[in-house]
Amino acid sequence: MTTETRWLNAEQQVAWRAYLLGTARLMAKLDDDLRQFGIGINDYEILVRLSEAPDRRLRMADLADRLHQSRSRLTHTVGRLEAAELVRRTSCTSDKRGVWAELTEAGLTLLEQAAPTHVEGVRANLVDLADPDDFAAVGRVFDSVSEHIGQR
Amino acid sequence: MTTETRWLNAEQQVAWRAYLLGTARLMAKLDDDLRQFGIGINDYEILVRLSEAPDRRLRMADLADRLHQSRSRLTHTVGRLEAAELVRRTSCTSDKRGVWAELTEAGLTLLEQAAPTHVEGVRANLVDLADPDDFAAVGRVFDSVSEHIGQR
Repeated sequence: MTTETRWLNAEQQVAWRAYLLGTARLMAKLDDDLRQFGIGINDYEILVRLSEAPDRRLRMADLADRLHQSRSRLTHTVGRLEAAELVRRTSCTSDKRGVWAELTEAGLTLLEQAAPTHVEGVRANLVDLADPDDFAAVGRVFDSVSEHIGQR
Repeated sequence: MTTETRWLNAEQQVAWRAYLLGTARLMAKLDDDLRQFGIGINDYEILVRLSEAPDRRLRMADLADRLHQSRSRLTHTVGRLEAAELVRRTSCTSDKRGVWAELTEAGLTLLEQAAPTHVEGVRANLVDLADPDDFAAVGRVFDSVSEHIGQR
């Protein structure tokens, strides 16, 4: 395999590493911003997805797909959010398709409180830094990535 | 704060979410690709950084900066890599600046074995999917992000 490997060229290597380091720094920053609300970026994304769903609830399996997270990781996180009373889990005996996660009133309130800080962080550390055409290119690239890899 | 919040417009929101989901899927895919070598994407990045350093070693603090990871997370990961004999930790009594992590021969061999699979994954799931101009834009955007957020 080694002899056929198509290594990245210098330019691609620079862009790939910028993406890796920039993403690590951005996620850590957005995580830090949310700490004052007692949640992290991953928790925030869960609350957002639930807030947008009908009746503010989703099956755990659907939530895992939308966030592309393993079920075990999601179960752990939702357990923590449930202990904080931001989310509640319910299961319906007539529905064999499993456990639902539902946003509580407290969860919705926290999300509304945290959202302005979060969106300002996304702007200040990403969107407002980028040329609009470049940011649109980021969207195109990761849309292709998402579609190519698809749902697990 | 709420009344002044500059929410993302529809286009920005779509690009931001594509980036979040695409990144989650890409990282999970690259992680899966490396499982056959007994390591994950985060371990791989550590081995790469050490392989490029003089004498194939870095201070733990420098390694944490380069990967933008917390010291506690890095300590945990390097402990695991040390147990697998891929990395060794050394401390020098004349050097007060702490503990070094050093790539072992076994670590270098594993890295050389895993690299072709990894780079093919980066190509197939990102680089080759993107228009070259778009991929260059990704590099520019995350270079700005990195620089803006800076080292912790």
